Amino acid sequence: MSPAVRTGSGTADRGGACAQVLLWTGGRELTTQEVPLPAPGPGEILVRVRAAAICGSDLHTVAGHRQAPCPSVLGHEGTGEVLDIGPDGSARPRDAAGAALHAGDRIIWSVVAACRRCDRCAAGLSAKCRGLRKAGHEPFAGPWPLSGALATHVLLPAGHDVMRIPPALDEAAASTAACAGATVMAALEAAAAPAVRGGRGEGLDGARVLVIGAGMLGLLATCGARQLGARTVHVLDPSPERRYVARAAGATNTAAPGADASGQGVDAALELSGSAAGVSAAVAALDVGGTAVLAGSVFPGPAVAVDPEQLVRGLRTVTGVHNYEPRHLVQAVELLASPAGRALPWREIMSPPVTLDGAAAALRDGPGSHLRTLVRP
Amino acid sequence: MSPAVRTGSGTADRGGACAQVLLWTGGRELTTQEVPLPAPGPGEILVRVRAAAICGSDLHTVAGHRQAPCPSVLGHEGTGEVLDIGPDGSARPRDAAGAALHAGDRIIWSVVAACRRCDRCAAGLSAKCRGLRKAGHEPFAGPWPLSGALATHVLLPAGHDVMRIPPALDEAAASTAACAGATVMAALEAAAAPAVRGGRGEGLDGARVLVIGAGMLGLLATCGARQLGARTVHVLDPSPERRYVARAAGATNTAAPGADASGQGVDAALELSGSAAGVSAAVAALDVGGTAVLAGSVFPGPAVAVDPEQLVRGLRTVTGVHNYEPRHLVQAVELLASPAGRALPWREIMSPPVTLDGAAAALRDGPGSHLRTLVRP
Repeated sequence: MSPAVRTGSGTADRGGACAQVLLWTGGRELTTQEVPLPAPGPGEILVRVRAAAICGSDLHTVAGHRQAPCPSVLGHEGTGEVLDIGPDGSARPRDAAGAALHAGDRIIWSVVAACRRCDRCAAGLSAKCRGLRKAGHEPFAGPWPLSGALATHVLLPAGHDVMRIPPALDEAAASTAACAGATVMAALEAAAAPAVRGGRGEGLDGARVLVIGAGMLGLLATCGARQLGARTVHVLDPSPERRYVARAAGATNTAAPGADASGQGVDAALELSGSAAGVSAAVAALDVGGTAVLAGSVFPGPAVAVDPEQLVRGLRTVTGVHNYEPRHLVQAVELLASPAGRALPWREIMSPPVTLDGAAAALRDGPGSHLRTLVRP
Repeated sequence: MSPAVRTGSGTADRGGACAQVLLWTGGRELTTQEVPLPAPGPGEILVRVRAAAICGSDLHTVAGHRQAPCPSVLGHEGTGEVLDIGPDGSARPRDAAGAALHAGDRIIWSVVAACRRCDRCAAGLSAKCRGLRKAGHEPFAGPWPLSGALATHVLLPAGHDVMRIPPALDEAAASTAACAGATVMAALEAAAAPAVRGGRGEGLDGARVLVIGAGMLGLLATCGARQLGARTVHVLDPSPERRYVARAAGATNTAAPGADASGQGVDAALELSGSAAGVSAAVAALDVGGTAVLAGSVFPGPAVAVDPEQLVRGLRTVTGVHNYEPRHLVQAVELLASPAGRALPWREIMSPPVTLDGAAAALRDGPGSHLRTLVRP
């Protein structure tokens, strides 16, 4: 779908049925609203949202710490059921792993909608597509009004990356794949990439890993690093509760930042806290040949002093990760559906389910004691 | 050879023949000295040096800017002829490309002598071997006295990485492979490595490259980047003469640092000047998905301020390169022997040949107008 074409233009509506959306209208103002349910146009997919998770970035948006189109329907971590697939001239839409999609399938969908035509898409950097649109980040008055998961329905543009979820995977857990999960898989890939250069084993086999920040990304990174063969995963977080959950996620050791030096000399450090101190700690912790993957620093912050000689003589690497490629969505579902992913302490991670009104309250009031507020729209 | 075994211990001497070495005895003191020519022990290779180049780091050592064992025979860029190969129980020594070595072969030899047994060697990081010894960097009174190329002869330990050079390759040019050339190939590999992640084409195909510093490394990096398919190579250096030579090496554009912004928005920036300003410029020049390879910062220097958000949102990478792996020695010879390598302006690069006494003068007096002083011992 070109950005000029309004999604859902296939027919005017679906016989008078309505979707309910939670509309963010600026500041801490959120209101539920009914909109006519569109019929999907060619290649588009109409999704009934079954579960959505409120990501930290949505909280930042409502708190005014982050620019976002307004008014808009927020929410970019969701699981839903395929309700209807728009008529496509030839091929039936397929998920990112190649499976044909049918009504009734349970799916998650990518945050990222890339044009697949620009130079960056051609270079394999669709995460930085020049025409990038993002689910849960589009203006309600624009061509993709039903982009957010904090609604009963989402309408996905033709060609949007989606993944079917296996029967054993819980819908609430699956919703975290679309943002936290896939971003973590991109970060783990970046952490393992120097293996090509250094000749180390596959993935993170035998690696010593440091994870800074035990939020949703940190927990999935811990679980994912162990799945990829990491020998040790040391997790730093100031919160004792989060450190407890990190140990349940597979951390071999946890500590408060600065509390000890046991996370030093690592092959890979994943900085997921976004703090300048975290970035410094990640770089300082690297052993010879190690890589610091920065994924948390998505807000303006202070510069970090780096010693070039330390990087050069130690063959050290610092690399940034933001958004992700379709393969990372596939990998995130695989991680969450694995025994280790299903064994994560989901009752500590996800709140009891709330309605859209409850989601509005959670967005206004800020994070509770859980890492994610679970919404059942 | 274990570090405890003295190289050349095969027999006491070679029938009274002598090698002449240029011995650095501290400060700016250098003296030629005769030493009995050793017979190579098992697997060792006795080399008659045919050409040697004085690397900038040797100048730094004699100027007192760099720690090195003393007294020692300096020189780690050399080409020589295999004079004798010590008796080996079974296999004949082979070069890094797998060819069997014979007396009379023209070879270059690695700076790096790795133990091949430690954890780093096992991890493919032999450049950072825990028992690393380096040609031209070993104490004259130690187990490897004849390690330096500023001598008539070098004795290589058993298993030391060497490469035969093809007939068409000039000995003087070939000598630069062992330090500048192989380091540049390691840097170019690091610059191209994110292709694995981003999905870009092979090597640097179509890439926009910035090279900071048009010394010996910068020229070879320029030539090598073009060979690997770089679309543009922009070279920054304050010296008009060096910029002239850089254009002859294949630079598509050259400028003085800070003179213009035409080197911005690159896929790869190679920092070979070692200056903090160069490091800042390399990182600042990166387009989305770009990689800055730092290889010049081998001396203590000021920290460089890096913006984590710029790295994260732009999927940018900063990586250090120091020393190299055996494959880079092979690649360096291939580059120098290629039509582009042979077409480099070698008369501008290498001085007219001098003897060991001339080498002593060059080391005392500092760099002349050429990038390398050519020594014919």
